[in-house]
Amino acid sequence: MKNIIVIINIIKPYHFQEIIDLASNYEVKKLSDISESDYSRIEVLYGYDAALGEKLVEVGAPALKWVQAPSAGINSLPESWLNDASLLITNMSGIHAIPIAETVFGYMLGYVRDFPLYVKQQTKADFTDHDASSLTDKSIIIFGAGSIGKEIARLAKAFRMNTIGVNTSGREVEHFDTVYKSGGEMPLLADINFIVNVLPLTPATTGYFDAEFFEGLNSTPLFINVGRGGAVEEEVLLDALAKEQLGYAALDVFHEEPLPSDHPFWLNDKIFITPHISGRVEHFAIETFKVFEPNLKSYLANSKPSINLVNHAKGY
Amino acid sequence: MKNIIVIINIIKPYHFQEIIDLASNYEVKKLSDISESDYSRIEVLYGYDAALGEKLVEVGAPALKWVQAPSAGINSLPESWLNDASLLITNMSGIHAIPIAETVFGYMLGYVRDFPLYVKQQTKADFTDHDASSLTDKSIIIFGAGSIGKEIARLAKAFRMNTIGVNTSGREVEHFDTVYKSGGEMPLLADINFIVNVLPLTPATTGYFDAEFFEGLNSTPLFINVGRGGAVEEEVLLDALAKEQLGYAALDVFHEEPLPSDHPFWLNDKIFITPHISGRVEHFAIETFKVFEPNLKSYLANSKPSINLVNHAKGY
Repeated sequence: MKNIIVIINIIKPYHFQEIIDLASNYEVKKLSDISESDYSRIEVLYGYDAALGEKLVEVGAPALKWVQAPSAGINSLPESWLNDASLLITNMSGIHAIPIAETVFGYMLGYVRDFPLYVKQQTKADFTDHDASSLTDKSIIIFGAGSIGKEIARLAKAFRMNTIGVNTSGREVEHFDTVYKSGGEMPLLADINFIVNVLPLTPATTGYFDAEFFEGLNSTPLFINVGRGGAVEEEVLLDALAKEQLGYAALDVFHEEPLPSDHPFWLNDKIFITPHISGRVEHFAIETFKVFEPNLKSYLANSKPSINLVNHAKGY
Repeated sequence: MKNIIVIINIIKPYHFQEIIDLASNYEVKKLSDISESDYSRIEVLYGYDAALGEKLVEVGAPALKWVQAPSAGINSLPESWLNDASLLITNMSGIHAIPIAETVFGYMLGYVRDFPLYVKQQTKADFTDHDASSLTDKSIIIFGAGSIGKEIARLAKAFRMNTIGVNTSGREVEHFDTVYKSGGEMPLLADINFIVNVLPLTPATTGYFDAEFFEGLNSTPLFINVGRGGAVEEEVLLDALAKEQLGYAALDVFHEEPLPSDHPFWLNDKIFITPHISGRVEHFAIETFKVFEPNLKSYLANSKPSINLVNHAKGY
């Protein structure tokens, strides 16, 4: 019997047909058509489903060789998979750069022009105007200088900002005025106006933004988290806002999602909450297939996907 | 007795002193120090105040020669001044380009990422996510291709948009893919995603966006008005939203400001209202003095300001 490629990701019908045509040695099945009797023959997952993942971990998945994750971050995959260096994992790194960068600039421009306040004023027919500021000549520090961080920096230069990046190597990256090596000598954070986290969640980045980090700030910047909730303890963030170490926070990711309805973030008027939409891609089925298609062709030809292969040791 | 230069605009103390030093043949007085006995000696206004303007029109201002208006649009000045070709009027054209362009991108990015909705959801602890779109490959048409329109187009190209401009001459302008001559052959408006009005208010632009204009749309674009409220009849705009000729409107300017508390715009969930803040400059006193200073030097030397002189016939 043939092994199975499971299609979990949203897909265009003509792309589904293309997979069938390309992978003639496989059975190609959608998630809804998978039953327990198929588990032992599942070799490839296009996309990820938590319920299926848990079951495969539970009963074992002897044929599983490659998981094409549906997002840039892979921290939601089963830990045993992340620790299994023989399992090929590819991510969707790249396709989220534009939507996340647009979301970040939506936060920043809304903040300098006071939009969240004006949305609330509108409900009260209140025309009171407030001082406004600008992105021009302001400084932004971006933690994570990969494809997403680079796109944010590119737009920041278009808005005439000073751009600082932080990555693991400290190597220069296009559109950044300066890049610092994470864990090494850090820039003076006194003059920072915007802090953006796009770090993947790994053991090294969990709780990265701690009390000491926020105590080092002398300005009161806007803190933006479009990486993962685990990068900052939520009490630490609330404390930094209360102490005016931060001026405001725009958060798209949280420790627990959906954010529990009794969470203190909801009513904090220095926090703007979006429901994990920063990376949402307008034509998701098409953009994700642009990653899966070359990977599938490569996998069928030489058992290895060609792009976006995750380094298990690094976790991204 | 010396003629008077009246300082109405907000000003830094050292700039006030600089004016006194430069204009030794004049008396330099702040608005609060002006009394009715001064009216006949007022020669220059730096900034504009409606109450003083009305009184000067009423009693006559025989010495008035030059008005440095505090904004790009001069439609709030007394009509008799606008019609008096011998009165020198200069505007603040240029200093609003960056803040207005940032406001416009705040509107557009907030719209594609659904921010006004998320601000409202936050008050109800609602984490529901919605589809999102992007600015990439979208088309923007900008009515008014002067310094403000050009800055908007420059940023639009950074966001990978298609840029169409409309001006009075049809001449090419940097950052615009195409420029159309106002009143001439117009582009097919079917594929437009964003419409931005930055036109000054003149007899030619009053009611420019009429029912026929909106009926010509086949897409349902976001309409942004950061020009003047008079460019569109408010009933026409409400009608275009109700008929889904427009998808949404972001409005910073209105026929009557403050917008009356019983105005139907307030409760329309397809409208985002800001209280005429799009042009608000972060360092207003400093930025405006950059226009007044060279103009004052030129005026003192040869009786004519050097930049931003308004053409009375055009009205801008």
